Formats: sequence, C-alpha cells, structure tokens
Amino acid sequence: MIFASDNFSGAHPAVNESLARYSGGMATAYGGSDLDKAIERRFNEIFEREVFVFFVGTGTAANSLALAAMNRPGGVVLCHREAHIIEDECGAPEFFTHGARLAAVEGDSGRINAKSLERELERFKPDFIHAGQPMAISISQPTETGTIYSTDEIDAICALAHRRKLSVHMDGARFANALVATGLTPADMTWKRGVDVMSFGATKNGCWCAEAVVFFDPEKAKQFPYIRKRGAQLFSKTRFVAAQFDAYFADGLWLKLAGHANAMAERMRTAIEASPHARAAWKTTTNEIFAIIEDATADRLRAAGAVFYEWNPPHTGGSLLGDDEQLVRLVTSWSTAEADVDRFCELLR
Amino acid sequence: MIFASDNFSGAHPAVNESLARYSGGMATAYGGSDLDKAIERRFNEIFEREVFVFFVGTGTAANSLALAAMNRPGGVVLCHREAHIIEDECGAPEFFTHGARLAAVEGDSGRINAKSLERELERFKPDFIHAGQPMAISISQPTETGTIYSTDEIDAICALAHRRKLSVHMDGARFANALVATGLTPADMTWKRGVDVMSFGATKNGCWCAEAVVFFDPEKAKQFPYIRKRGAQLFSKTRFVAAQFDAYFADGLWLKLAGHANAMAERMRTAIEASPHARAAWKTTTNEIFAIIEDATADRLRAAGAVFYEWNPPHTGGSLLGDDEQLVRLVTSWSTAEADVDRFCELLR
Amino acid sequence: MIFASDNFSGAHPAVNESLARYSGGMATAYGGSDLDKAIERRFNEIFEREVFVFFVGTGTAANSLALAAMNRPGGVVLCHREAHIIEDECGAPEFFTHGARLAAVEGDSGRINAKSLERELERFKPDFIHAGQPMAISISQPTETGTIYSTDEIDAICALAHRRKLSVHMDGARFANALVATGLTPADMTWKRGVDVMSFGATKNGCWCAEAVVFFDPEKAKQFPYIRKRGAQLFSKTRFVAAQFDAYFADGLWLKLAGHANAMAERMRTAIEASPHARAAWKTTTNEIFAIIEDATADRLRAAGAVFYEWNPPHTGGSLLGDDEQLVRLVTSWSTAEADVDRFCELLR
Amino acid sequence: MIFASDNFSGAHPAVNESLARYSGGMATAYGGSDLDKAIERRFNEIFEREVFVFFVGTGTAANSLALAAMNRPGGVVLCHREAHIIEDECGAPEFFTHGARLAAVEGDSGRINAKSLERELERFKPDFIHAGQPMAISISQPTETGTIYSTDEIDAICALAHRRKLSVHMDGARFANALVATGLTPADMTWKRGVDVMSFGATKNGCWCAEAVVFFDPEKAKQFPYIRKRGAQLFSKTRFVAAQFDAYFADGLWLKLAGHANAMAERMRTAIEASPHARAAWKTTTNEIFAIIEDATADRLRAAGAVFYEWNPPHTGGSLLGDDEQLVRLVTSWSTAEADVDRFCELLR
Repeated sequence: MIFASDNFSGAHPAVNESLARYSGGMATAYGGSDLDKAIERRFNEIFEREVFVFFVGTGTAANSLALAAMNRPGGVVLCHREAHIIEDECGAPEFFTHGARLAAVEGDSGRINAKSLERELERFKPDFIHAGQPMAISISQPTETGTIYSTDEIDAICALAHRRKLSVHMDGARFANALVATGLTPADMTWKRGVDVMSFGATKNGCWCAEAVVFFDPEKAKQFPYIRKRGAQLFSKTRFVAAQFDAYFADGLWLKLAGHANAMAERMRTAIEASPHARAAWKTTTNEIFAIIEDATADRLRAAGAVFYEWNPPHTGGSLLGDDEQLVRLVTSWSTAEADVDRFCELLR
Repeated sequence: MIFASDNFSGAHPAVNESLARYSGGMATAYGGSDLDKAIERRFNEIFEREVFVFFVGTGTAANSLALAAMNRPGGVVLCHREAHIIEDECGAPEFFTHGARLAAVEGDSGRINAKSLERELERFKPDFIHAGQPMAISISQPTETGTIYSTDEIDAICALAHRRKLSVHMDGARFANALVATGLTPADMTWKRGVDVMSFGATKNGCWCAEAVVFFDPEKAKQFPYIRKRGAQLFSKTRFVAAQFDAYFADGLWLKLAGHANAMAERMRTAIEASPHARAAWKTTTNEIFAIIEDATADRLRAAGAVFYEWNPPHTGGSLLGDDEQLVRLVTSWSTAEADVDRFCELLR
Repeated sequence: MIFASDNFSGAHPAVNESLARYSGGMATAYGGSDLDKAIERRFNEIFEREVFVFFVGTGTAANSLALAAMNRPGGVVLCHREAHIIEDECGAPEFFTHGARLAAVEGDSGRINAKSLERELERFKPDFIHAGQPMAISISQPTETGTIYSTDEIDAICALAHRRKLSVHMDGARFANALVATGLTPADMTWKRGVDVMSFGATKNGCWCAEAVVFFDPEKAKQFPYIRKRGAQLFSKTRFVAAQFDAYFADGLWLKLAGHANAMAERMRTAIEASPHARAAWKTTTNEIFAIIEDATADRLRAAGAVFYEWNPPHTGGSLLGDDEQLVRLVTSWSTAEADVDRFCELLR
Repeated sequence: MIFASDNFSGAHPAVNESLARYSGGMATAYGGSDLDKAIERRFNEIFEREVFVFFVGTGTAANSLALAAMNRPGGVVLCHREAHIIEDECGAPEFFTHGARLAAVEGDSGRINAKSLERELERFKPDFIHAGQPMAISISQPTETGTIYSTDEIDAICALAHRRKLSVHMDGARFANALVATGLTPADMTWKRGVDVMSFGATKNGCWCAEAVVFFDPEKAKQFPYIRKRGAQLFSKTRFVAAQFDAYFADGLWLKLAGHANAMAERMRTAIEASPHARAAWKTTTNEIFAIIEDATADRLRAAGAVFYEWNPPHTGGSLLGDDEQLVRLVTSWSTAEADVDRFCELLR
C-alpha cells in the first residue's frame, strides 16, 4: 500500500526490454545516434508539428534548464505559490538561472488565477529596473496539487504572457495523467494554447529516467545545447533515454499507464468521499489525491502498512484543517496494485 | 571499427538484467531504497573503509558537483592544462562553482608536474585577495591523454595540496582502466594516497548511466545532498543507478571489462608502433591511444570504416606533427570487437 | 518640493570637506590606510564592541554580500513580503548568493510577524532536501514601509532564528532614522538583540556613497574579503568612503541629519492627518510616509511642483484604496527644506 | 617615494571642487539627473560619436559587467595570460558571467599575439558543444604589463574576432596613459579599430571612484541597465560619479594628469637603464615600469622609504631573473612628486 509517490514505482517491462534491445553495438554518443533521431521524430508526430527535443535526466533539470533558456538579467518567473519549482526543487531553478526570482501567484487549487497574474504583472512598471523584469510564466499540468487547468485557463494565461512578450513554460512531469484526465491531445494541451516550452516527464509513469525539454519555438532552443551541457545534463549514452521513450510511446503505452494510475486514484477518491473519517481537501481528477484525514485514522492506515506523506497545507489554506486532522497526499501510479487500493478503501470505511 | 570513444558502446547484458531484476514493486525514491543502501555498503567494501557515496548522472556532474563541495569565494582549482574539466565540459565546473577558476598547470603527458604545481601555488601569496584563493587540486586517473599517474606522483601532489589545506579531487571517469593497468586496489589509488573526493565513473565501462561522487572525508560531504539536489542530479528512481552498480561490481565484472578494453588498446598500440605510417604521440597504458598518423593513412582508415577523432594537440606540443600528419585519438571499450581491432591493425601495415 | 526619495539629496558640506581634507598624498589602497583603520575603530566605539566592518558602494551590495556570507546550497532567506531585497534590488541578493531564495513572510506594516515566521520555518522539515534549507532571516530597520520593529519584536525574531542556527541580517539603509525615532543606541538595536550582521547605510543621510557591512560575529566575516572582491565591491581608494564616514560620525552629525529628516516627516504627517483629501496608509515614525491621497489632490500637488512616487500597495492590502485614490510615498531627508514641507502642507489643506 | 600603485594617490583638487559644487539641492537619483545626462553627452564628444555610458564603482565591476553583457552559455573570453581580469580580480569576471572561462592566450610583453589568438580560436570547432563557445576577446590598453598595443595589432585582433562574431572588450583602466603615450584620439584607439565595449577608468588618474562601461554598439547595451543593477553597481547618487568626470574632462585635465604620470615614469626608466643594479624587464611607455633589480638594491631602496611591489614573473618568463634578483613593478601617478622620483633615481645609481 505505497501511495507515497509515483516515483516509488519501478520501470515497466517494455522499458527494460527496449533498453536490452538497443544495448548492443556502437552508437554515436551525445544524441547523435539513429535511435535518438528516430525518437526526436516521434515527438514531432506526438505533437503534430516540428518540435525541438532535448533529453535530460530529472524533472528538476527539465524545469530549471527550460527556464534558463528564457533567462533575462533580473528576471522573474511567475508561477503558482505551491508550484513544484518553488516548493520542491531545492532552489535549482534559481541556481540554473543565476538567481532569477520565482514570484508566487495566488490561485485556488494550485492553479494560477489569470486575474491575480495580471495584478502581479502590473506591479512591474516598464523600465523600472529595480523590480527586475518578468521573463516567463510557468504553469504545471497537472498542477502540484493534482488539479488541471482548463484550456480556457491556459489560453488566458498565454494571452497575458504574450502580450508582454513573456514565454510560457509548462511543467509536464505528469503530462500523460493530464492528457488522460482531459482527453485532450498533446498539441491541444500545449502549443495550440500558446505554450512555448515544456518539461515532458516520463519517469514517474513507467520509465527509469526519461525526461525531455520540448521547445515549440526554435528561436528559444538555439542556445539550449550549450545550456544543457554546461548544466551537466548531456548524457553520453543518450540512447538509453531514447530507448525508454521508444517503449513509452509504442502502442500508446504511456496513456494506458497513466490511465491505470488515474483510475486507481478515482477509486480511492470515491472511498474517501464515502468515508466518515476523511474528505477531499480539494477536488482532483488525476493520480494525486489530497485528503484531510482524522489523525487516528491516519495512524490506523499507517499501522496497516499504508505509506503516504503528510503535506504542508497551501500557504493560504491553514484553516482547512480541524483539530486532530491532517492533510495527506496519496499518489497512485502505473504500477499501483488494485488489491492495495481496495485494501486501503476498506480500511477507510 | 568504432574507436571514437568508449561511450559509443552500449550496456553490458548483466547491467540490463540487473535493471530488469530490480524494476518491479515499489521502492523508496531519492536514494532511500534497500538496494541503494546495499550499494553504498558495496562501495565501502571496494574502498576498504567507510566512504560517502552520491549517485549522479554524468561524469561532468560528478566533477562539477565534487568541486562545488569544496568551493571558496574567489576559488581556484588547479588542474592539468589538457584536463577534461577544462577542455570538454563546456564550463560546467565553473558554472556549478559560481565561477571558480580552473588554473592550468603544465606537465608532460597530461600529468600535473608537482614542480609546476608548486610554482603555480607559490604565485598565490597568503591573504592577497586579488588573486583569489586556491581551493583544490584536480587530477584525472587515467588522465585525459590516456596516461597514468604513479603512486609517487599522486603522493607528491597530495602532500603539496594538504600542506596548503587544499582538497584533492580525482576524476575517475575511467577509473577501472587505471586499476587494471596498474594492478593497484581502489584504496591504494585514492585515499591511501591522500585523495579527498573522487568522481567514480562506470558509464564508459559497461553501464548506461552510472556515476558517483565518493567522499573519503565526511566533513566535506555534509552539504552535498543539497548541492546535488540544487544541481538537478538527485534522481527519483535512484535504484536504476544502484542496479547498474550492482551488476558492475558483481564477480569483478568492472575489472574484467576494463581489462578487455586495455588489452584491445595494447594490441593496437603494438600495430601502431610497427607501422611505417603511424607512431604513438606519447606512451599510454590504458584504453586510449594518441597516435600521429599520415593524413593519407588516416583517410584510408576512415574510408575503410574506421571511426576516430582528430584531436587538438596539447597546447605546448604543436611541434609534434609533421606536415601531412594528424593527431588522432583511438579509444577501445569493454565491447570493442577483436575482429575490428585486427582489421584496423591490418590496415595500418 | 522633492519627496521622491532621500537619495535625491546630495552630500553634506562636512562630507565634502572631509573628502578634500584626505585627498592629498599617498595612502595604501584597498582598505589598508591609516584612515581606514581609524574609521574601523570608530565603528567599534559606535557599537560598543569589536565589530568587523567592510565598506561597499551601494545598499544593494551591502545586503547582497551580507547574505552571500551566510550562503548555504539550496538556501532560503526569510524576509518580509515587501522587503527592499525582494522588491527593489533587481534580483541582486539572489544573484550574489547564486540563487538563494527570498521567501516572503507576511506581517502588518512591513514587519515580519514572529508567528508567521515560525509557521514558515515549520514548513521546512529537517533533512527534507527538496525544500532547500533556511539560512537567514533578514529584517529592515526601519522597514521598507517606514515602520519600526520594537526591541521585543527583534528579540522574538532572533530567538526563533538562533534556535534553528539561522543568522539574522538587518538592512539598515536608514539606520540613523531608526535610532533617532526610537532613542535606542546602535548596540541596543542590533547585536544586543541578536543581530549577526547588518547593512549600515550612510548614503541616504548625507553622504555620497558610504555603505558598510558590519559583522558582529567574526566567524561569519572570515571569507568576506574574498566575497567582496569577487563581488567587485572592493574600492581601491577606500579612503574616500572612510573620509565620508569620518565626517558622518563627527559630533553626532549622522543623528542630527536623521533627526531633521524625521522631524520634517512628522510635520507632513500632521498635515496629512488633518487633511480632508489624504490619510496615512499606515502609521510610520521615521522619514517615510505612505499616504492615500485623492487622485485630484495628487494631481494638484504634482502640478504645483511636488515630486513623489505612486507606490504599489502591499500584496495583501489591495483594498486599502478607494476609487479615485492612490497610494503614494513621501520621503524627507537631511536636506529637505522646511519651506518645501510647509508649502506641501499648505497645498494639502 | 610611493610607487606601489597609482591607486595609492588621492583625488585631484578639481575633482573635490566639482563634488562640492554639485552637492547641493535635489537631483534625480539612479542616473536621471541633468548632470548625469550632460556627462553622457560629454562622452559622445570625447569619442566623436554616440556612445552608451554606464557609471560603475570599480574597474573590476566595469570589466566583469561588460563581459556579462556579452555572455553566452559555456562562453569563453580569450585574453592575455597576464591580464588583470585573470590575475587580479579574484574571479569576479567568472562570477558575474556565471562561470564563463577566461582562456589565456600567450604573447610577448602582455599583448595578445594575433597568431596565438587564431590558434586558440581554431581549437573551438563549430558546434562542438563540449569545448564551450568563444564569446569575446578582451584586451587591455595599456596592458597589465605597461605596454601598448599598436593600432595594427588591435586591428588584427578585431578582425579575427568579428570574423567569428565575437565581441572585443578593451580594459581601459589606465586609458588616458595610453592616449598620452601614443598621441591617439579615443576614437582612433577604440571603435575605429573595432572595439565593441570598453571599461573606461578615471579612478587611478585623479578621481576618487569614477569608472564607466562604454558601449559603441547599442544592441549590446540593451540589457545592461538590468545587468548593472543586479550586479549592485547602480549608485543612487550617480551625480557623485558624474561630477568627478565633469572635472576630469574639463580643459583636458585627464590628459594632463596622465602626461605627468607618464613623464615621471620616463624619468625613472632612464635612471633604471643607466643603473648597474637594475634593468628593464621589458620595454614600457606608460606609467608602469617592470624592472629587474638586484635584491640588495631593492632592500636598500625599501630601507630608504621606497614602496613598490615584487611581481610574479610572467608564466613563460621564469628565466628572466638571475639569482639575487627580483622583478618589481614601479608605478607613477598624476600625483607622483618629482622630488620622489629624483631621489629614487639617485638611489639607483
């Protein structure tokens, strides 16, 4: 009953098979192999246009280097106050951008509110050097709190950004889960909305270590080969990342795996809603659930072997919790066993 | 006939099997799994003492973050003028140390000369702020030019360093090849000589992506968890690195693989020495050969399918080359086929 | 009628005289002159203990380098949401700390609230690498919004900080104004409360360019000579800073000048309180006033020659303003003419 | 008899008078005052074209921020091996460029040799990411070793640079001394040769603290306001720098002062050439002399009150010195007294 994180899962057998299949012989290092090129073309198909793909090793690297590619001196990245890039990357985005600031924007349920965003942007007067200069908006899809932006919401954010010549970055660490939850295509979720660059994550959803930065605007990608190498993220044997993506995309495996994770979460959600000892902290539709559970029930679940994290409440949501309650995060994955879910639901009754 | 680099090779079957073996079920992410802990203990055995091991994704990351752990404001790292950290990492060491300088020290055959090192160090007067402050010596074993430091040479460098309270870093991207070439133990090659931290590479020698920073001094490792995470090198599914090391160390596989690479190089070396069209640029004893080849011969070899790089001559060795000659690097690996080597040697006659 | 900022003022005649007096002959550069040493001793007297003083050129440099001296990888500096280091330094603190984060803490009237601070600190669980690690608390005295921390408030903040082994930095860009407003001694305001390092500003209060970083803990100052030089803030002719401080401290000039500025502000405050067209946005006791003024009145004042800035409302205080009103900042200085103040007050009626 | 450095001198009376003259009243801060604007126009006159001028506080800041304005990821600045930016700025250029490398180019007498430069540049193959990418050439005029580039030499370097789309930076910390020594105009020395940006120093030659970054290409200056502010080099009371430049340029004061310094050095040079106890280490024509002096003579001079620094020999010039000799640097300034020079010459006989 491990619901700590989807990165507690391992790798899908198809991923291992792919690694074995491509492990023989010699291949050009540093992204130049035939397999690398083939996977780059696969990304074009998936996004229904030419994209510019760079493999990296971690989601933190994808986010940090993508933002570094948009860097301006005194730059400010606006993102949600609970964004992963603020809360969980140990300052890597600031480090890789040499100190760009992540300015927190408020918004319900982990989503930037376009109104709040506009208000924040208006605090930056043109040519007022002292405040620094906005350089990008970063949104996560799904968000760090398991929710999803509607296409209208993304449209509104991109419009605001582009009017001010700011780039839009999407953190897609769990991108497949968002696609499955909404039924949208990758193109509809991203560049058709106005997203300029994204972090494309596969690690959490069945790979070992397969992340990519995907640029929709070639101009913004021009210096990225240097940014990635200087950032120590240019792997020599890149075919090991490419091989993982090869299996990941084959026969829609990625969407099947995300579909399983989402379905398992849905089952848990239903049980939580029905439980007298727990309730949803807010509504989610992906593979993450944030629940308020009685302390005693949480203890009981843990004693029975359930593993999950207590979570910091949102900065503005301290009042969510009653006495003797805790906010917890429950995450399912491609490898979550139905039996575990059922046992957890049983214990919640 | 690929002699371009040992990182053109793939992964050994045992590595793939290990990945498959450990891919099931749930395991604590970010280095907390049982397998991670077991491999950390394995490193203790290999080095015959307690060491502090941190997995990272690339050799550039290992070098850069190791140096970051020794950082001082205005810091200077002294290393050989042809060192990989200067020549081939796109400024990553400077980036991760926020601008520490890599000061080039001269020395024959890619090895820092202790005399030159002392002369460089003496240029830094105590408390003369303007020049910055030395913070570390970095040596590579084997060196970037395929040669090997003797234990006496390492002793001399470490003594010089420690007398000035400087740390010594060893770049061991091809560490196994050095061990095989010398017959020394890991302990004898490193901490018994005075090395404080090393980059331990396995990627080039049969893994996909398995590098580690190994500290011999716990004090220097204290902030490293933050340095690594901020540097985007904390993988979530660290067991995929651990699993590779598990296979790598089992039954001495790593030394066998390096032994094969070294033996293949030795065979090529003999052929080069016997050839009227080529000669060794300098003597090496590992899996890298630097040869001076007639242009026409190089063309002929390439036309026959041999792949190898032309190499920049050392800064001080421009006169090595006659007209119509070129300096080339030939690298063998764990997966180099004997038939390829034999064909290359044949072509050289 | 310039109330735009105290840095619109020039230099006091005594400062110019001191510069002229010390401009002849030769003197050791880079801080080694007799005058430099004498001024360092003067700081000891002023703080009633041994302090470690480093001259720098701007307040931004003082803040940024002071924080750099406390740097930790993945470090987080907690400060008020409206702090100058967040709002007005174009990312310099993040730049000089290689990306440390400034985490905003809420609190009324520009002051960190100890309760909010504790809540923020508790979000950082020990050894939870992902969130980074707190490294310092930075407070401004007076605050960016013209208010003043009581000694009890500083005590509470320092106690919280030191319990967690965090340093406390005080931004004293207008330190003299705070001393005059409270009647406290420099010692009582700083190290006796637990402050570890401060930015000591004199530029706004009658100097040309005289700022200093003052360490109360010698251990924290050890690497500062390198941090300052690497930060391009080691002036060669440091006696030009020392000469300014010499005049600044002589016969309590600094407190007299700050006293004038505070008194001029007090007069304006009274007029604002009495005006039907304006009111204080919040209560201040130093040389800065934040007032809510009817748009028409503001226009009228500006048309009559008054210069002052419209100000971004605090993030949490959007509702301060009615329609047809604006938040403005009015700053007096050592050189503000009484006649200007009186005319402004007249216009406000 | 202080010949330690020209920055041991103070400020010229005209500079102090100018500071006093402009110290009254209110003036727009941060570069917006009438005086600031007037001095910017003065720079246009001096350079006989529109230039883009930014005041900063130190020569190290001017160099570091100028290079930051040309920054590229993995960037490499080529400069002479004895350049001030390498030897004497404590890593500031690397710090402000987030780790750009300063690659040392050899050349006699402190001057980059165009042939060596070309050879270094050719080591960077197009699109070979690993080596990083050249971004600028930096030359000093006069050089760190007191010599001067001929216009032909600058032409050759600029041609090489521009052919590869690299910028050329000139460190003009002692620019006036070079103008006087050559009789060239500022325009002829800089942009007419192809220089893109320069560090314009006045501090050493009679000011307190007056340095500027001068761009000849407006495109390269676009982000500089943010780079300077983020670098903590935007002074609030910029008129104090402007006032110094006002006096500095009036009636050609700057050239007169530099002329005095150069003449004093010439007198010392003659004495050194005539002395049996000393000789020029290499020929200089500005206000710096590098001499090889017998240890006993150096002791005698010091005992008599002469102050000068022993200097590290150039990296390639260890053999300059015989036993019982030392390399010393002697620097004259605008305020060097003839009597001191004569006494020094006398002692040398």
